[in-house]
Amino acid sequence: MLSNTIEFRVEWGETDTAGIIYYPNYYRWFDRATHALFRAAGMPVVELVAQHGWAHPVAETGCRFLAPLYYDDLVTVETSVSEVRRRTFRLEHRVRRGETITGEGFELRAWIKLGEPGASGRLAAIEIPAEYAARLRGEKI
Amino acid sequence: MLSNTIEFRVEWGETDTAGIIYYPNYYRWFDRATHALFRAAGMPVVELVAQHGWAHPVAETGCRFLAPLYYDDLVTVETSVSEVRRRTFRLEHRVRRGETITGEGFELRAWIKLGEPGASGRLAAIEIPAEYAARLRGEKI
Amino acid sequence: MLSNTIEFRVEWGETDTAGIIYYPNYYRWFDRATHALFRAAGMPVVELVAQHGWAHPVAETGCRFLAPLYYDDLVTVETSVSEVRRRTFRLEHRVRRGETITGEGFELRAWIKLGEPGASGRLAAIEIPAEYAARLRGEKI
Amino acid sequence: MLSNTIEFRVEWGETDTAGIIYYPNYYRWFDRATHALFRAAGMPVVELVAQHGWAHPVAETGCRFLAPLYYDDLVTVETSVSEVRRRTFRLEHRVRRGETITGEGFELRAWIKLGEPGASGRLAAIEIPAEYAARLRGEKI
Repeated sequence: MLSNTIEFRVEWGETDTAGIIYYPNYYRWFDRATHALFRAAGMPVVELVAQHGWAHPVAETGCRFLAPLYYDDLVTVETSVSEVRRRTFRLEHRVRRGETITGEGFELRAWIKLGEPGASGRLAAIEIPAEYAARLRGEKI
Repeated sequence: MLSNTIEFRVEWGETDTAGIIYYPNYYRWFDRATHALFRAAGMPVVELVAQHGWAHPVAETGCRFLAPLYYDDLVTVETSVSEVRRRTFRLEHRVRRGETITGEGFELRAWIKLGEPGASGRLAAIEIPAEYAARLRGEKI
Repeated sequence: MLSNTIEFRVEWGETDTAGIIYYPNYYRWFDRATHALFRAAGMPVVELVAQHGWAHPVAETGCRFLAPLYYDDLVTVETSVSEVRRRTFRLEHRVRRGETITGEGFELRAWIKLGEPGASGRLAAIEIPAEYAARLRGEKI
Repeated sequence: MLSNTIEFRVEWGETDTAGIIYYPNYYRWFDRATHALFRAAGMPVVELVAQHGWAHPVAETGCRFLAPLYYDDLVTVETSVSEVRRRTFRLEHRVRRGETITGEGFELRAWIKLGEPGASGRLAAIEIPAEYAARLRGEKI
């Protein structure tokens, strides 16, 4: 399965009033990590949008928080695709500071074609094109 | 159990490049809703921090996303405490635009005393003081 | 000239590692205040975009910071249009906590029609339609 | 004078409903660039805070926006110290995408010792210690 790692420092404005990471930032990092993984796999999101109108909104996300992060901590997010289904795929994100795992989360994402939402007001997922499903699985293509 | 509702509009900068809500904002709203609930219950977080050094970091969060939100949508977040345990409590957040439920999430939060993290580098949860556990349960006090 | 006031509390995640407001949030508030002013003047941005493709990107902004803001502070932003020119208009924002002015800023905004940027890659400002210029000036229409 | 450059991509959630960069993010980048400059100069903010209680809140900021930025644009921020006064210093930030300058801004920052604000509720600036003033000027030390 496809995997990728990003690294960055906790910024001055990313902590909360207690001086600890403001937790919604974990999800910003997950989104960043997913975009980095698409780029690393040779399918930058910017091209998928421009050429095909494809986007990958989340259907479900979650995270367990195991240890606090502070300003300037050097953070690693290890991302891997854990499941590729017909219309959705799942990513696991492990967040570390050095050897300490500070959080473990996931994103379940749908493959959609941008445009008008359906009659229900929901975004309609489409089948993941075979070539891209293979890329998500990390298969040689 | 304690419950509270907040209402606001999706802001110009809260959407993503696809023009749909950028999902980490849901978690910002959950945090906002939890702080509003504490205030409505007569225990504003600002006082808990100043008087006791108590904070309530998340141990786990998650959300299912059911329908997209767009700029200027009028959003309601209904928050309720669903469980009060010895050192943790759980909040459910339902996000609506009119009658449409657009997302359902939760926060599992610990009750901690701010200060140095323990030897493990983790934040040490303390027992929720009885008066505050009663407030979270929505009991008359 | 048109003016409007909004009020809100500083949120838990809006402070920085020093526990003081993270200053880019001032500009988020300015943007929020401008959108609220447009709504109060009977020309919600959501309608201007949907019906005419008009948007109002900033050409220049600035702020002087006079006193710190902290979590939970009740903040007022008083916004007024100070100048309406052919293709641009200027807004002044005064930020207060009670009687204390904590910051004073401005936004110089252009009136544009969304679409492809010009050959220069810049957004092309258009003439502010007379009816809307009058609204910005606070004239009875 | 001290200078430094950072580079990053515009993220999926950093654009607004018009698909253009949400302008408060420029100021987040300025703050990021200033922290990177301090690190590059051998005086990481995290150490200044921990060892001395020094911080550098902004007294004034501003930016002119010259061309739009879009998702995934590769952005360079060139930062340089333009003035070092007794209690304040000024940074200039130039934002580029390739050869196109998209924005030019500044931060006027004070050197303070964290602690209780003065009777006026304002943060009291202190004299910039000579060694650090020299570093800001880019002098060999």
